[in-house]
Amino acid sequence: MPTDLERSMESLITVFHRYADKEGNSNTLSRRELRQLIESELPTFLKSQKDPATVDKIMKDLDANGDGEVSFEEFVSLVVGLSIACEQCYQLHKKGKK
Amino acid sequence: MPTDLERSMESLITVFHRYADKEGNSNTLSRRELRQLIESELPTFLKSQKDPATVDKIMKDLDANGDGEVSFEEFVSLVVGLSIACEQCYQLHKKGKK
Repeated sequence: MPTDLERSMESLITVFHRYADKEGNSNTLSRRELRQLIESELPTFLKSQKDPATVDKIMKDLDANGDGEVSFEEFVSLVVGLSIACEQCYQLHKKGKK
Repeated sequence: MPTDLERSMESLITVFHRYADKEGNSNTLSRRELRQLIESELPTFLKSQKDPATVDKIMKDLDANGDGEVSFEEFVSLVVGLSIACEQCYQLHKKGKK
């Protein structure tokens, strides 16, 4: 039985490949695949940005090597940024409860 | 209903705090808390290392600011490294199936 942390890491991989496998190189996200991933998997985050250019900005940030594609390593940096931001909210929420 | 990716990020936070909240600063992992987290949440990985000093080496790697504690941001870099390694195995496995 996988642990919570193992399942969480596995889920990062399966979610990435759910979209990366759709077209072209199955190991990278094209701009369209990244848009589909963000719209489907991060709807709350996307709505909170209120900026139609959010996906394009994220693409620019993530595509560190500028090849127009997002690798799993580049994708994980998005997850890290969002998780760190969420964890800070978690800490504030915890303080609020004391 | 949270998406798979949202649930995965949430799980990273809850797993971290399941151990960080045990003693001392509830926003960081002490060496003991890190050991407990790795032994419980990453047993397969730990067994594969076959090195009793694995946890101490990980602590040294993660504790970027040398304060003897591991913050969530430092912890996430462990998750990133392991996820990237696992994803490369996933790619090889996928190639093997073609």
